[in-house]
Amino acid sequence: MYGRLLLPELRVLLAENDTAGIKEFCEALYPAVTAEVLSELDSQEIWGVLSCSGSERQAEIFQFLPLPQQIAMVGIIDRGPLSKLIEEMAPDDRVDLLSRMDDEHVEELLPLMAQAERRDIRKLLSYPEDSAGAIMTTEYASLPENISVAQALEKLRHQAPDSEIISYIYVVDDGRRLQGIVSLRELIFARPARPLSELINRDVISVRVDDDQEYVAQQMAKYDFIAIPVVDRQNQLVGIVTHDDAIDIMQEEATEDTYRLAAVEPLEDSYLSTSLMTVVRKRVGWLIFLLVPSFLAAKVLEHYEAVSDKFEWLVLFIPLILASGGNAGSQSATLIIRAMALESNIQKGDLTALLRKEIQLGLMLGSVLSSISFVVAWAFTAELMQATVVGVAVFLVVLIGISAGGMLPMGFRRLGMDPALMSNPFITALVDILGLIIYFQVAMSLVS
Amino acid sequence: MYGRLLLPELRVLLAENDTAGIKEFCEALYPAVTAEVLSELDSQEIWGVLSCSGSERQAEIFQFLPLPQQIAMVGIIDRGPLSKLIEEMAPDDRVDLLSRMDDEHVEELLPLMAQAERRDIRKLLSYPEDSAGAIMTTEYASLPENISVAQALEKLRHQAPDSEIISYIYVVDDGRRLQGIVSLRELIFARPARPLSELINRDVISVRVDDDQEYVAQQMAKYDFIAIPVVDRQNQLVGIVTHDDAIDIMQEEATEDTYRLAAVEPLEDSYLSTSLMTVVRKRVGWLIFLLVPSFLAAKVLEHYEAVSDKFEWLVLFIPLILASGGNAGSQSATLIIRAMALESNIQKGDLTALLRKEIQLGLMLGSVLSSISFVVAWAFTAELMQATVVGVAVFLVVLIGISAGGMLPMGFRRLGMDPALMSNPFITALVDILGLIIYFQVAMSLVS
Repeated sequence: MYGRLLLPELRVLLAENDTAGIKEFCEALYPAVTAEVLSELDSQEIWGVLSCSGSERQAEIFQFLPLPQQIAMVGIIDRGPLSKLIEEMAPDDRVDLLSRMDDEHVEELLPLMAQAERRDIRKLLSYPEDSAGAIMTTEYASLPENISVAQALEKLRHQAPDSEIISYIYVVDDGRRLQGIVSLRELIFARPARPLSELINRDVISVRVDDDQEYVAQQMAKYDFIAIPVVDRQNQLVGIVTHDDAIDIMQEEATEDTYRLAAVEPLEDSYLSTSLMTVVRKRVGWLIFLLVPSFLAAKVLEHYEAVSDKFEWLVLFIPLILASGGNAGSQSATLIIRAMALESNIQKGDLTALLRKEIQLGLMLGSVLSSISFVVAWAFTAELMQATVVGVAVFLVVLIGISAGGMLPMGFRRLGMDPALMSNPFITALVDILGLIIYFQVAMSLVS
Repeated sequence: MYGRLLLPELRVLLAENDTAGIKEFCEALYPAVTAEVLSELDSQEIWGVLSCSGSERQAEIFQFLPLPQQIAMVGIIDRGPLSKLIEEMAPDDRVDLLSRMDDEHVEELLPLMAQAERRDIRKLLSYPEDSAGAIMTTEYASLPENISVAQALEKLRHQAPDSEIISYIYVVDDGRRLQGIVSLRELIFARPARPLSELINRDVISVRVDDDQEYVAQQMAKYDFIAIPVVDRQNQLVGIVTHDDAIDIMQEEATEDTYRLAAVEPLEDSYLSTSLMTVVRKRVGWLIFLLVPSFLAAKVLEHYEAVSDKFEWLVLFIPLILASGGNAGSQSATLIIRAMALESNIQKGDLTALLRKEIQLGLMLGSVLSSISFVVAWAFTAELMQATVVGVAVFLVVLIGISAGGMLPMGFRRLGMDPALMSNPFITALVDILGLIIYFQVAMSLVS
């Protein structure tokens, strides 16, 4: 919104080569807003703008650019300024970028950075993708236990500029093992001479460095935390995950699940910035795979050719049979997959209850759709028997569709796999085959 | 997770009527954990536990219970303790609950509450659902402009216990108009005698009280804010929206969009806690509506009956034609609807680019699927001409499916409607009808 308004102004500054004006432009606005304006320019131009500013501000703006743009820019910035820029970035954003760059390029840059940063980067890069370790930041505030409130505030004064979040301060022992948590709010309003240990809340909720990022975000959402501490196997504090990452993860996971429901493999970047060939790759596999059940359906139809030759009207309602089962099945699968994504602690008992509910739903929705189909088919063909075949088949197909839509994602979960892998088109395809068999069997038993 | 482990212990305390033990149970754990344990009990039992604790702690735990459970409990708690409990709840959680209760019941409770709370509730209840006003909290920290750092800290000392977030403090003038923002971090480390005005960042990003909650959450995600101020038409500060609400909104909106894609109307509560009849209501409308295109497809098949009588093999590939177009169309619709949900600032130019991309995709995916279908159909029927009909039809149907899947959500958006209203089954149904017409036309022009 802002972006499009400010762009002409920035272009004028660039054309006039007004370094001071550009610097002011970078510093007057929120980094997120500046990044939004810049994302309309090409990499060369963006770097032209950023290089007018100090490396700290550069990094602040740079980390709000979309990741594909960051990667494109890495190719055109000289090693010297690039290593400075990366050094200034927040540890978690930095690792996101580095893990997407060529290993060789990273190895070229690392020697140019300060030793502490280098060690930090190597450590964060070593955690598996999508783990708490890969998304955490190492810039948190921590304090030893045996000091006073006044000493604590004094120590914080030095840490604060480098900490992403100081609403919570983590208390660690000599071995950096997490002992508890102090809220900044309590700390600043406590008597200066009071021992810090009296303010410590020792019932800390933390996550493990190898926990999945989705679990981390769910924990933060559940407890309404601004940040959650990350510990290793020895309970040593190694980082924190912050609220903004939790939102990003939630978005990312919801997007992945939505894509999977529609049989699209998750994309790494936004759809707009993903290349055509990548999108083709993410879509074509499923589409080819889904041809298999369609040819199986052809086999089924071939098997019943004698029946459909004799009763030609049966062909007319094939789309109705296929759609009723598929639509009802997709609804169930979507509701259940989303419920499992939102409530991480669904238990075996809940699943049984859910399944019972789906079957009741199947009976009710099946009856409604069956009655309507019966009436319309009767109006359509003017034959009571034909309408009866359609009505009965729709009832059974909806029931089968809903049962399959409910059970398949649960089955996947029972097998320890992600229920969202079960896409709606796949469920629909399975229901199509069953639906055709049911339809012709009903027809054979009623009209022949 | 915790819940199931602690439940037996709590049951023992309840059976022994151990009031002190129950009180300790409520106070030793995080409110979110206690609420998780309690959610396994019935309303009477939950109240039995909560009533052992003070009303402040009661409210903290109560607001972590799922909303349907909160509503159930409201029916069994006496008016006196209930009004106290509601008084202690956070303003935003309280309004969520009250807006779901009977108006009469609310009117009975309000007179029992303190005047300030009453006024606050009436005001928050007056904002439209899903607006910034309806989700904001009125418990924020604010300061006048012309004081020193020391005076500011002194004033905060009184406000802090009642503020949800004090990482940011809002600076207002005499008319409560928002002037700027001060970070607590800067405030505590500034010289006490320094005037507050020197620390104020006047470039504040705020939302309007009638802005949509989705927009509010997007702004917070964009700027990585812990809280965002909410102002009215006169720029008066009326509340703040906090990071935990942003996560909840993101979840809620993602769930709504996912449901809509599968032709399910959004539910108010989680799927597990929604009653059978409500689920039927949310699903049956779409399913009935989707019968219409299925009967239109029957009409199309009737129209081409002469062709399919003559070339019976055409019927065999009807499921293939329907599935190819529908699957490719659902993929496109899902990708585009999700892209529009995530990037609020998609412009007209982006849409044209997207559409061009979809058509290129249609050509590429259409070619791949068409080739495979041609080969398999040839193996299936051993007739080159029949395989050609299938191959050509699949190509055209995939192209049409992808174009429709891409264009329909964009058209909805152009009309100012939510693109997510365009469900995948509906797009599939439209593509089904077009697909059948294309299939038979191709057959007529190639084989007759």
